[in-house]
Amino acid sequence: MWAGTPGPAGRRAGTVPAVTATAAPPARRWTVGVLGGTGAQGRGLGRRLGMAGHEVLLGSRDAQRARQVAAGVAGTAPAARLSGAGNAEVAERAEVVVVAVPYAGHADLLADLRGVLAGTVVVDCVNPLAFDRRGPYVLDVPAGSAAEQARDLLPDSTVVAAFHHVSAVLLEDPAVDRVDSDVLVLGDDQAAADVVVGLAASVPGMRGIHAGPLRLARCVEGLTANLIAVNRRYRAHAGLRITDV
Amino acid sequence: MWAGTPGPAGRRAGTVPAVTATAAPPARRWTVGVLGGTGAQGRGLGRRLGMAGHEVLLGSRDAQRARQVAAGVAGTAPAARLSGAGNAEVAERAEVVVVAVPYAGHADLLADLRGVLAGTVVVDCVNPLAFDRRGPYVLDVPAGSAAEQARDLLPDSTVVAAFHHVSAVLLEDPAVDRVDSDVLVLGDDQAAADVVVGLAASVPGMRGIHAGPLRLARCVEGLTANLIAVNRRYRAHAGLRITDV
Repeated sequence: MWAGTPGPAGRRAGTVPAVTATAAPPARRWTVGVLGGTGAQGRGLGRRLGMAGHEVLLGSRDAQRARQVAAGVAGTAPAARLSGAGNAEVAERAEVVVVAVPYAGHADLLADLRGVLAGTVVVDCVNPLAFDRRGPYVLDVPAGSAAEQARDLLPDSTVVAAFHHVSAVLLEDPAVDRVDSDVLVLGDDQAAADVVVGLAASVPGMRGIHAGPLRLARCVEGLTANLIAVNRRYRAHAGLRITDV
Repeated sequence: MWAGTPGPAGRRAGTVPAVTATAAPPARRWTVGVLGGTGAQGRGLGRRLGMAGHEVLLGSRDAQRARQVAAGVAGTAPAARLSGAGNAEVAERAEVVVVAVPYAGHADLLADLRGVLAGTVVVDCVNPLAFDRRGPYVLDVPAGSAAEQARDLLPDSTVVAAFHHVSAVLLEDPAVDRVDSDVLVLGDDQAAADVVVGLAASVPGMRGIHAGPLRLARCVEGLTANLIAVNRRYRAHAGLRITDV
């Protein structure tokens, strides 16, 4: 596993912070890649992580489009280090890779990138949803959840699930200074989950909360359908807060 | 359906308030029955609803035990109208019936009570969970969710899903004045869902939020496993708040 085997001189060797359950999240800055970085969720997360001081690589199937979108996002995120590249190059260069593609393309993309994602923390924020005239609904995923599908397709990576519920509209809105929202983080590898909790905490207003192992990702992903229902009913950009934590 | 057919002189005829999406919840007081009212969740919900001015009937398979438990709960809820009875009598007398039994007994109980629950709003708060050495996990329910199972077993009732995430510990704690928590309410019948949103709103600190139709109940039920994981990790009594609503 990623956390248990810090290799001799790899790009991530020795970079896993020793975080206890009670310690504050580390202030470490990462090179974060975003697969599907030209979609609304990917652009928004990339923008906020860039503004938080991480180096962000937005990935797309089309490298030229990725560079154009990254330039546009950088224009709304002063001082952020943001660039664009093809998905495979992003997967190769990043220390932490966020998967923000539509569910329909999730399995094929990850299967293609298995090799370059080996040894990397992969943060899956994909929601397996579909829509009909009654609104959103949750798709059945044979592996249980998109995150478990990623784990099965990437046996040499460490998969964490997070960032499912953060409104892309708020992430991209230059008038929104603080993204007041809790990010539920699920993972079977404690050190990798700690890294993602720290990533979330680096964005003003956001908080990362450890919310169980990957086998509990299904309902976190699916709850996005409820938040969409809330948004439609109340004309809101709903997010979550966990009380008493 | 319950909301569409206010009968000529039934006990609930004409009691469905006309609530719009923007109106405040009605201040109506109900006779609320709680099936499984002697368990922690049932006792706690009954206690808070009784303190909010509703007449509460705690039900149990054992009527004598129900009366004893109701007397005990009433002792911590001054001025509340709380009594106990057998589940069938509670189902017969109550205007709104909360189902707070363990999932293992859910289907058999509702099948038995189909007749006496006809015409009634049934509020399912059952979480289909199990535990192993790795912690809680979500059971597969053939109907999709416990709430949809209730709907299928009670074709003459109107089923709403709610109150899955409220901590029984906080509900029962006499030192806790406000139960600061949002209650996600799911239902296919708008007027019945409005009644349950109003029930939640009648408890200080609680808020009822319309969160979609019954087909989206599965992940609301299952999210309880995540909150249990949060409780274990942070030694908390975690609840939910929805932001921007």
